[in-house]
Amino acid sequence: MEKWRILESSYVYKSPFGNLRKDICLLPNLKIIDDFYVNEYPDWVDIIAITKEGNIVLTKQYRHGVKDFTLEVPGGIIDSENESAEQAAIRELKEETGYISDNLPIFLGDMHTNTSNATNKEKSFLMLNAYKKFEQQTDDTEEIEVVLIPFNKVGQLIKNNNITQIFSVTSYYLAKEYMQDIEK
Amino acid sequence: MEKWRILESSYVYKSPFGNLRKDICLLPNLKIIDDFYVNEYPDWVDIIAITKEGNIVLTKQYRHGVKDFTLEVPGGIIDSENESAEQAAIRELKEETGYISDNLPIFLGDMHTNTSNATNKEKSFLMLNAYKKFEQQTDDTEEIEVVLIPFNKVGQLIKNNNITQIFSVTSYYLAKEYMQDIEK
Repeated sequence: MEKWRILESSYVYKSPFGNLRKDICLLPNLKIIDDFYVNEYPDWVDIIAITKEGNIVLTKQYRHGVKDFTLEVPGGIIDSENESAEQAAIRELKEETGYISDNLPIFLGDMHTNTSNATNKEKSFLMLNAYKKFEQQTDDTEEIEVVLIPFNKVGQLIKNNNITQIFSVTSYYLAKEYMQDIEK
Repeated sequence: MEKWRILESSYVYKSPFGNLRKDICLLPNLKIIDDFYVNEYPDWVDIIAITKEGNIVLTKQYRHGVKDFTLEVPGGIIDSENESAEQAAIRELKEETGYISDNLPIFLGDMHTNTSNATNKEKSFLMLNAYKKFEQQTDDTEEIEVVLIPFNKVGQLIKNNNITQIFSVTSYYLAKEYMQDIEK
């Protein structure tokens, strides 16, 4: 099995949220694909924040991909020049919800968001003993409502399609697994 | 909280794998975003296929997004005009691996692949008692190696970053949860 070779690359657009690259690829069987599109995204973090009272800290906001309001865990882009993934997790939680924790973020795992068409990974973190200390600091394209729900009800919210974003779902299962492992 | 309004929409490209739409959006606070890109993807299926011997049926192939060979569960696009998600699961498993099952696919859950920038859902299925009956039927851009691994070793493969694709990871946790629930 061999890798594809890129014969030519160009950018359809570049933006702070990611670039779209168009490659002309030569396959091992000598077939040529003229227009293979790759999303060059920066890595993302997602945070399972659980309060001292056992609630998960969720966000509700309008998401234009699905044209609807969705319930998700806080998350966002790592500013790779200026911060680590852990720092991004702390920052995103604070900006989107005003919550912080005196505990360090626990790394739960990282996954490619789309091996076929994207370059990046999503990194999941667990933040325990979270509490509200600040006001939200959203930018002028964000309007975010903070929603607290008992952590042990999240599984049912996923089954009922109240939480549908794959990064939130995966981060929840990783956190649940982590907590089951340390209880053993 | 209000939805965004689309002032103007155009397509950057259209392809059988998805379209890229560029929207000019008016936000509730009257701010305008000139270039919000949305991937209009069809829904995808992913299949956790487990053989009578307790192995999971995985695929190994070159993935150009990450420019590497990855271990993933079988999966692909639902041909929405001609088939149901269940039919797509049966077809993709058969085409990519030659495996089938006499049991119907069990629906495990579906999730938005990216609420912000994509329209579609990924739908996970479990197929039990799978066995090899056919040869692979890949198209001329695919070269797929079938890999069998004991299902109870998949968790370790995820922890070791041998399986990194988020759709495979999520489908595995949903399948594990499903099987734990029916054992109770």
